[in-house]
Amino acid sequence: MTKMQFLSFEGPEGAGKSTVIQAVVPFLAELSGREILVTREPGGSQIAEGIRTLLQEKTDPAMDPWTEALLLAASRREHLVQTVEPALRENKLVLSDRYLDSSLAYQGGARKLGVDRVAALNDFAIQGRLPDLTIYLDLPVEIGLKRIFANRQDKIDRLDEEDLSFHQAVRQTYLQLVEDNTDRIKLVDANQDLAAVIAQVKEVLKANWR
Amino acid sequence: MTKMQFLSFEGPEGAGKSTVIQAVVPFLAELSGREILVTREPGGSQIAEGIRTLLQEKTDPAMDPWTEALLLAASRREHLVQTVEPALRENKLVLSDRYLDSSLAYQGGARKLGVDRVAALNDFAIQGRLPDLTIYLDLPVEIGLKRIFANRQDKIDRLDEEDLSFHQAVRQTYLQLVEDNTDRIKLVDANQDLAAVIAQVKEVLKANWR
Repeated sequence: MTKMQFLSFEGPEGAGKSTVIQAVVPFLAELSGREILVTREPGGSQIAEGIRTLLQEKTDPAMDPWTEALLLAASRREHLVQTVEPALRENKLVLSDRYLDSSLAYQGGARKLGVDRVAALNDFAIQGRLPDLTIYLDLPVEIGLKRIFANRQDKIDRLDEEDLSFHQAVRQTYLQLVEDNTDRIKLVDANQDLAAVIAQVKEVLKANWR
Repeated sequence: MTKMQFLSFEGPEGAGKSTVIQAVVPFLAELSGREILVTREPGGSQIAEGIRTLLQEKTDPAMDPWTEALLLAASRREHLVQTVEPALRENKLVLSDRYLDSSLAYQGGARKLGVDRVAALNDFAIQGRLPDLTIYLDLPVEIGLKRIFANRQDKIDRLDEEDLSFHQAVRQTYLQLVEDNTDRIKLVDANQDLAAVIAQVKEVLKANWR
C-alpha cells in the first residue's frame, strides 16, 4: 500500500490549481488504488465557511495581518479535523487546494509576519500534520494577474486588489519554500498551456510516488 | 501620571464581573484622573463580533478545542488592535471584561490544552501586551452556576451547559494563575454580597495603584 495519503497543491491565483487537481484525479485514483477526496482551504465545514466569510469581508481599517493569520489557522484546524483527518482514517487519498504553505507565502512572506513565526503559529493548527507531497504551480506574477482579470473580473476578491509587489513577495516566498523543502515541495512550471502543465504534474507525481 | 493603563477583570460566569466593572468606573476615574473605556472580550469590533457569533454557534460535532482557542486568539488580537490600543494611545484607562487569563483558564485548563501552550499561542495575538493589573473574582462553582441559572435562564449559552467538572477546572486554573502571577493578578472573594465585593475590589485597586 502506498505511503502517500495527503497531497497539497499550492500557487498563486491564476495558476490553475483547481483545474489541475480535477484533471489528475483519475490518474491518482489509478496510481494510489484509493478513493480520492478533493477539498480546499479555507472552508469545507460549517465553521470554516463562516471564517472564510469573515476573511472576505471588506473592513475599514483593513484586517490586522495577525488577526488574518490567526483566523486562517483556525480555519485550517477546522478543515483538518472535520474534513481531512476523517478521510485519511477512511484510507482515502486527500488532495487539498492550499494548506500550510499558503499561510507561509501570503502571511509569512507577503504580509511580512515572518515565515518562521507563521509556521510556529500554524503548528497549533496542524500539530505536525504536513502533506506527504506538495505540488507548487509556479507562474510569473504578471501572467497570473492577467489570467485572473481576464477570466474572473466579476470575482475579484480582496487579495486580487493587492499590488504587484505583494504578489511578487508571495512568489519569492514560495520559491524559497521549494528550496528549503526539496523532499516535500515540487515545483511545476505553470507558464505553459494547460495540457503541458497537467502532463508535468503527472510526471512529478509518478516520479515521487512512494 | 499613573502607570496603570490597562486592567482586566476575570472570573467565572456569575461572579458579577460586568456589575463590578460598572461600579468601579467613577472610583477609577478619580483615582487615575483619566477617561475610562469599558470593553469586553470577545467582541468590540466588526470582525470580533463576527468571531463571537461563530463561537456561540452550536455545531455537531462540537468545535475542536484548538479551533476554539485559535478563534479566541483572533478575536483577542482584533479587540486589542481595534479597541484597546487606540484607547491607550488616547491616554484612556482601559477596563476589559476578560482577556488572556480567560483563555488560559478555559482552553488551557478546563479544555486541557495546557496553560503554557495556550499562552504561547496567545502571544501571537497579544505580543507581550499584558494587563497592568488583573482582578480575579473568585467564587465556588456551585454558587456561580446557581446565579447564572437563576438570573439568565433565557441566555444560557454553550459554556453554561458544560458540566460541573469543567467549571471546577476553570476555577482551579484561575487559582493557579493567581499563585503564579502574584504581582499582576489579585484575588477578590466574590462570594459576598455585591456591596462588599465592590468595596474589596476598590481596596485592592487602591492598594496596588502605581
